[in-house]
Amino acid sequence: MKVALLGGGTVGSQVARLLDVSRDDLTQRVGQPLELVGVAVRDLKKDRPGIDPSLLTDDPVELVKRDDVDVVIEVMGGIEPARTLMLEAFAHGASVVSANKALLASHGAELAAAADAAGVDLLYEASVAGAIPLLRPLRDSLSGDNVKRVLGIVNGTTNYILTKMDEEGAAYQDALDEAQRLGYAEADPSADVEGYDAAAKAAIIATLAFHTRVTLADVHCEGITSVTAQQVAAAKRTGFVVKLLAVAELLPDRAGVVVRVHPAMVPRTHPLASVRDAFNAVFVEAESAGDVMFYGRGAGGQPTASAVLGDVVAAARNKVTGGRATSQPTYAALPIRPVAEARTRYTVLINVADKPGVLAAIAAAFAENEVSIQTVRQDTQPEGGAALLVRTHLAVERDLSVTVETLRALDVVDEVVGVMRVEGEEGA
Amino acid sequence: MKVALLGGGTVGSQVARLLDVSRDDLTQRVGQPLELVGVAVRDLKKDRPGIDPSLLTDDPVELVKRDDVDVVIEVMGGIEPARTLMLEAFAHGASVVSANKALLASHGAELAAAADAAGVDLLYEASVAGAIPLLRPLRDSLSGDNVKRVLGIVNGTTNYILTKMDEEGAAYQDALDEAQRLGYAEADPSADVEGYDAAAKAAIIATLAFHTRVTLADVHCEGITSVTAQQVAAAKRTGFVVKLLAVAELLPDRAGVVVRVHPAMVPRTHPLASVRDAFNAVFVEAESAGDVMFYGRGAGGQPTASAVLGDVVAAARNKVTGGRATSQPTYAALPIRPVAEARTRYTVLINVADKPGVLAAIAAAFAENEVSIQTVRQDTQPEGGAALLVRTHLAVERDLSVTVETLRALDVVDEVVGVMRVEGEEGA
Repeated sequence: MKVALLGGGTVGSQVARLLDVSRDDLTQRVGQPLELVGVAVRDLKKDRPGIDPSLLTDDPVELVKRDDVDVVIEVMGGIEPARTLMLEAFAHGASVVSANKALLASHGAELAAAADAAGVDLLYEASVAGAIPLLRPLRDSLSGDNVKRVLGIVNGTTNYILTKMDEEGAAYQDALDEAQRLGYAEADPSADVEGYDAAAKAAIIATLAFHTRVTLADVHCEGITSVTAQQVAAAKRTGFVVKLLAVAELLPDRAGVVVRVHPAMVPRTHPLASVRDAFNAVFVEAESAGDVMFYGRGAGGQPTASAVLGDVVAAARNKVTGGRATSQPTYAALPIRPVAEARTRYTVLINVADKPGVLAAIAAAFAENEVSIQTVRQDTQPEGGAALLVRTHLAVERDLSVTVETLRALDVVDEVVGVMRVEGEEGA
Repeated sequence: MKVALLGGGTVGSQVARLLDVSRDDLTQRVGQPLELVGVAVRDLKKDRPGIDPSLLTDDPVELVKRDDVDVVIEVMGGIEPARTLMLEAFAHGASVVSANKALLASHGAELAAAADAAGVDLLYEASVAGAIPLLRPLRDSLSGDNVKRVLGIVNGTTNYILTKMDEEGAAYQDALDEAQRLGYAEADPSADVEGYDAAAKAAIIATLAFHTRVTLADVHCEGITSVTAQQVAAAKRTGFVVKLLAVAELLPDRAGVVVRVHPAMVPRTHPLASVRDAFNAVFVEAESAGDVMFYGRGAGGQPTASAVLGDVVAAARNKVTGGRATSQPTYAALPIRPVAEARTRYTVLINVADKPGVLAAIAAAFAENEVSIQTVRQDTQPEGGAALLVRTHLAVERDLSVTVETLRALDVVDEVVGVMRVEGEEGA
């Protein structure tokens, strides 16, 4: 079994190392030895310890055009040239293992079709939640079940920042600085903190969970940059923790799928609440299985390489035995609905005048927009006025948005300070 | 694709129901319709809502001897006739999906060999931890990695009892009574509370994790019947929770595998500590992936049926496409070592005379047996004498056993009240 590697960075070098040190085990598991026949890198001059220099090439096209390569591992990242190289690999009969979430979330349909046409495998466990076995269980283990909702903490950088804010009361900027110092966040952290990374993963998860093609463009995305220490502390006081969640869910009566990424309050008693620091976890609500959760490291060269190699073994074994992995079945083709149709619970923090009748006016604003209030907490402010913290029952996002507009127009309302969704609470 | 069902109990009736209500989805996922052609039950007179009466038979042999059956689902339980029926099914070219942990843990090798000889699938995700996708991830997703240790809460009954003891200070018997009242424990609870159920699951997990055949007889097994409210409360005071753990681990230098089931103290900060009530979770420590955890419902008709159907889809799909699931590769064939060679941490509670020199004598008993003490806590007893709580560093089980014998022979020791293992702490 001949294997070609595209990319010699953090993940690529670990993949090359593990192919070497685990040679005997992998041979047993595949049924034939795996031979690394080439590693395409951008810079041939860079020192790459653990990779046999004679395997290095800066011509990835030549590598994927070889007809004797059985499995191509793509860990270079980015849309191009990765996409073209993968299509070329399929055309030459190779299966492809990829860790490229951006590419899968945007061009998944094209790539899956090309793999199907060639009768080979396209596997990408490493693209979501690093080392956590998630996509194979979603695709295969739950294939006799119906997923209703997925709640995921799928970005380690933001979870690290929010953990610091929750546990140490840190301000967002201070927590981000520390994450950057420790290497959990990049110099330009926007892909993480704006939620784009999580959104790509949410699209991949939703596609498998609902047998419906979901792309990055379908995902409503809000990051954590405007989450304040005050919000996190207020959540903590009331038994919640703020997490950046990727939510993929079926609307009632299977009317469609909504996929969204945003900060949310999660009850401390929910299994996701104890997922700390850079760890990831994905919580799946299925019709028959009930609640299942997958937990582990979401990033890092070695964990990601573990997921890549698991897929390499599967793809190579299929080549040996003549089988094929389940492809991406998108037969359900449910409509993708906008976030305005999502149904969840909310907290709304409102600064109001401290005088009689205020609460009645506020309550009326919610009621006339069909948003039912669960609790209201009123705190008199030292500087005058009062702060109202309203928690709603399940409501439709569009109704909540109109409610907020209505509130803003009220004379008694000084400011709608913040709105945050609440996820993972029991009951309808 | 023709499917035969052996067993019409809690799980069987849910499987039959889901095959019916999910017909369209299953057809899409398999690539062909699944047709239930027979349900073998013990008592034909019993009312079985949701199962077409014309499918019922009390002759399972006739069913598995049909050459047109593609997948046989075995959810009858017990060793015989399940074993003979499965072998017969393989001989007639059917793949088998089973939820039978006792059979798999005792006759797994024979069944796997028969499936291999017939070139069909033997899948049994439902046999361990109900609906939680665990065996497929262990077998396939981690196939590029090396598992070092597995810690599992795999019995819901005992976890329910221990949760009540921890959270409400309940005595063992009271918690058991409540579990029986609520249907979490059987009238004869011994299979659960003595640890046998967990031991069968531990054998199945260890076989897949270490590519080494482990049977029920290889598993060291202690139940929870002698766990006291005092022990649970003492653990709680020091930041631990008592759990019945299934532990499967590699010895240093891959010298062998030890598999054991026993109550253990787990730090509150460990992800397993928050697994409450009848939930199950399995924590896997792998060389590259790091720590991964799987969480969900470990029992119940519908969750178990979800796992069964996931395997049915996989087996049927393989029949359609000509592929085969990974069989149980036991190539590593590591030696199974006795629990005496296990290395873990311990707490030892000792009632002693309250006089000078006692601590020195106790410490000497540990030291001369190569067991290093981490902390000692001495509490003067109201009735005279003192209680010593000793926590050790990592030690070999055999050395700890000899230490306890040495302690018992000491004049200053009134009684060694309890010994409990500590699992899930950081560091070597």
